[in-house]
Amino acid sequence: MSKNWNELAERMAELKDLSSVIGLLSWDQETVMPAKAGNSRAEQTATLQAILHERLSSPRLDELLESLAGDASLNAAQKASVRNLTFERNRATKLPVGLVRELAETQSRSVEAWRAARAAKKFSDFAPFVERLLKIRQQQADLWGHSGERYDALLQGYEPGMSTARLEPLFANLRQKLVPLVKAIAHAEKRPDAGFVKKSKWSVDKQWKFSMQLLEAIGFDLEAGRQDKSAHPFSSGANVWDVRLTNRFDEADPFSSVFSALHEGGHGLYEQGFDPALHRTYATGAPSMGLHESQSRLWENLVGRSLPFWRAYAPKLREHFGRELEGVSAEQLHGAVNLVQPSLIRVEADEVTYNLHILLRFELELALIRGDLKPKDLPGAWNERMKSYLGIVPPDDGVGVLQDIHWSWGEFGYFPTYTLGNLYSVCWMEAAEKALPKLWTEVERGNLIPLRDWLRDNVHKNGYIEHAEPLVQRVTGAQLSEEPFLRYLWKKFGPIYGVHAA
Amino acid sequence: MSKNWNELAERMAELKDLSSVIGLLSWDQETVMPAKAGNSRAEQTATLQAILHERLSSPRLDELLESLAGDASLNAAQKASVRNLTFERNRATKLPVGLVRELAETQSRSVEAWRAARAAKKFSDFAPFVERLLKIRQQQADLWGHSGERYDALLQGYEPGMSTARLEPLFANLRQKLVPLVKAIAHAEKRPDAGFVKKSKWSVDKQWKFSMQLLEAIGFDLEAGRQDKSAHPFSSGANVWDVRLTNRFDEADPFSSVFSALHEGGHGLYEQGFDPALHRTYATGAPSMGLHESQSRLWENLVGRSLPFWRAYAPKLREHFGRELEGVSAEQLHGAVNLVQPSLIRVEADEVTYNLHILLRFELELALIRGDLKPKDLPGAWNERMKSYLGIVPPDDGVGVLQDIHWSWGEFGYFPTYTLGNLYSVCWMEAAEKALPKLWTEVERGNLIPLRDWLRDNVHKNGYIEHAEPLVQRVTGAQLSEEPFLRYLWKKFGPIYGVHAA
Repeated sequence: MSKNWNELAERMAELKDLSSVIGLLSWDQETVMPAKAGNSRAEQTATLQAILHERLSSPRLDELLESLAGDASLNAAQKASVRNLTFERNRATKLPVGLVRELAETQSRSVEAWRAARAAKKFSDFAPFVERLLKIRQQQADLWGHSGERYDALLQGYEPGMSTARLEPLFANLRQKLVPLVKAIAHAEKRPDAGFVKKSKWSVDKQWKFSMQLLEAIGFDLEAGRQDKSAHPFSSGANVWDVRLTNRFDEADPFSSVFSALHEGGHGLYEQGFDPALHRTYATGAPSMGLHESQSRLWENLVGRSLPFWRAYAPKLREHFGRELEGVSAEQLHGAVNLVQPSLIRVEADEVTYNLHILLRFELELALIRGDLKPKDLPGAWNERMKSYLGIVPPDDGVGVLQDIHWSWGEFGYFPTYTLGNLYSVCWMEAAEKALPKLWTEVERGNLIPLRDWLRDNVHKNGYIEHAEPLVQRVTGAQLSEEPFLRYLWKKFGPIYGVHAA
Repeated sequence: MSKNWNELAERMAELKDLSSVIGLLSWDQETVMPAKAGNSRAEQTATLQAILHERLSSPRLDELLESLAGDASLNAAQKASVRNLTFERNRATKLPVGLVRELAETQSRSVEAWRAARAAKKFSDFAPFVERLLKIRQQQADLWGHSGERYDALLQGYEPGMSTARLEPLFANLRQKLVPLVKAIAHAEKRPDAGFVKKSKWSVDKQWKFSMQLLEAIGFDLEAGRQDKSAHPFSSGANVWDVRLTNRFDEADPFSSVFSALHEGGHGLYEQGFDPALHRTYATGAPSMGLHESQSRLWENLVGRSLPFWRAYAPKLREHFGRELEGVSAEQLHGAVNLVQPSLIRVEADEVTYNLHILLRFELELALIRGDLKPKDLPGAWNERMKSYLGIVPPDDGVGVLQDIHWSWGEFGYFPTYTLGNLYSVCWMEAAEKALPKLWTEVERGNLIPLRDWLRDNVHKNGYIEHAEPLVQRVTGAQLSEEPFLRYLWKKFGPIYGVHAA
């Protein structure tokens, strides 16, 4: 047994090193790689991925995993490694090479087609690609296996342990309760004033410095990570000692880089917080994308868009932008970063409307996978739901059904993780508030470390020993429900907009 | 045949991708990697190196190389790939795993010991490590094979095709002719004045900008490469579309970053200049380290320390440092960057004395490998030669025999490539001058592109189809000799110091 475990550990180390290097190549490509190196980078990445796949498909790995699968002498972390690697292996090996290649080729053609269709604002040019991607993904789902609901098989790739049967009622309840709040706010007479933002140009250098201060403030270890610039902010962790964040800076908007720093910083804290003892095993990492997102949303929204945070950090922002912020109070800043407004574009949506964008996508992609909706009927279904959930209709497909890249990659099943992240984030925060009675007093003094430490001990260090939902339940005692999130929204936005739950 | 070639080509592509990624990991480590990621980076690199070694040792690769070895239907580039990969494979597979591991472990311990000994200025603490490294390297040489001269087997790792029998008389002649020039200059009454350097602080930002201008001026493609900062300047090329240079900036010295940019830029131009058709084969790359060095030295010394260059670039440097360079002419700048002075440290040595530092090391390491010199006797032998070649004796081992890192890695056979680089550089330049009668007129106008293009067509694009010496001979018609280099030194330094050949 112990000999088999040691052999597995060696193989895991190699697999993890390969994955981490593939991640670094991707970081490099998005941040520093010379423009002309794109093709050669694709070659390098494909070579490493082929080697990773070869290693993952090795019959010896299968033997080892089988021999260790029921081994009671393994500890919890070792059992989790066996479970998680078995899952990875099955996902990789159950698909015939031909299907993998077909997906890869269709993906790269679809992305091109999507870009062109979006520019032309014409969904019908893109519809045949959705058709083909759907077919491939449905085949994949059948090969991976499911009990009648193909969407479940896809969902496992992003949110292991979650099911459509759990999501559907949860999201329906959430939608039902969000729509009245959105309406109440839309008709509110009280509205924050963010007019000061447009009056100034906001130096990119100063924004950079403030974003670095924020990363330090949340306790992101800059000796075990870094921040760079890229076209779209993202985070990527090779291991707890090497976590890389990116940000984007806009002269017209000082807040975009603030919230990206907090968002990616939240992901980054998670990556830095895994138990180092799990390094190079399959028990490190996040149990799901939703759980990862719960960490970024917690720092971005629950902390970064709170009044105590701005009481502490308005003066620090003012050190960089004294002239631009003359006469703007912490309360005004807090209002300005909490504008709620039904809008067309998901990535620009506020906390209240954001999840409606997700629920809409979830409903549509579930119907597509089930075969209840034809790709050609997507724009109509999209616009109808926009009208019903948010009260607005996109003037064209470019700012409607074509706005996100996800479907062009065939990523059906990904969107729900965003909303799960929002729901989980409030569970964590409510538990942290109970455990740390002075949490918000400390935040108001600018001290974010007690919260970071609580998250590290209760969330991060667990890695991927349990699945997401059981972990949240064990630590917070909360059942997955829309209630805590709704409670949070009303408590925060009620006073800002002078609205009350019916 | 063609089928075998295609299979070999696939394997080469994979091997080359792995090597290029290992190179990128090393660049990343030296430039941007978070401080705490050192151990995990060592793991990642070791994993990729083990995979590379596994692929290189594959019996199938051996079959393919054997089947193609005498194949007359291959073109020159294909033949070169077969020859070069066979060489690589033999170097990798002729050593037992135990010896490879012993070397790796001894190396990492030796480097530590060397750092400590250098700090303590005490060679005797380091001597036992030299002893052990020597034994391992002698064993390696015997396993690789040689005809009585072990140093030859080591030399092949850096300068394939070169032999000790060729180097010894060449370097003896060079030494004999350099010593009188050094003496003549040491006693010259005329000396350039570099006093202006110490009078100012030289902004690092401005140095950075000027170094980027220089890289553009020599035709380094910044869309297929980049410059970053690192503790020690170096260059590294993943392929012709991704070449990375580093530089170091010193507020007390504006020239160090200028010559590093030209030096690393020279390496970088070479890396960008290989025929793209050779990509992912073993016919791309430089045929030897000496030949690579000939490109860096050509730009650093033959161009960058020439009067025409400073006539063109003094005004451009003045755009950044107008105040600091007030009243300093192009001629004075040219003098200041051509100070000749026997000194203790190789990496700070001028063009005239530099090779004496190398010859000394070559003689000592050859004697070590032959067993004619005991490691414990190194400091004495070192100091004796310093006295005889340069007329100075190190006050301690730290600035004497312990100054270079090379021997702590067991890199015996590396040093000669520096001097070969200097000798080859003048061969290239004399040929370029013949081919381009207006070369120096163009340089004086700031136009360095004709020279870049000549080098690209005549040196760079050849890659590693021929060995270094045959390539130089074919293109320039010159036999490898100390004469062109000496001619160059006298022609340049004679007027600066008012000295004449006897």
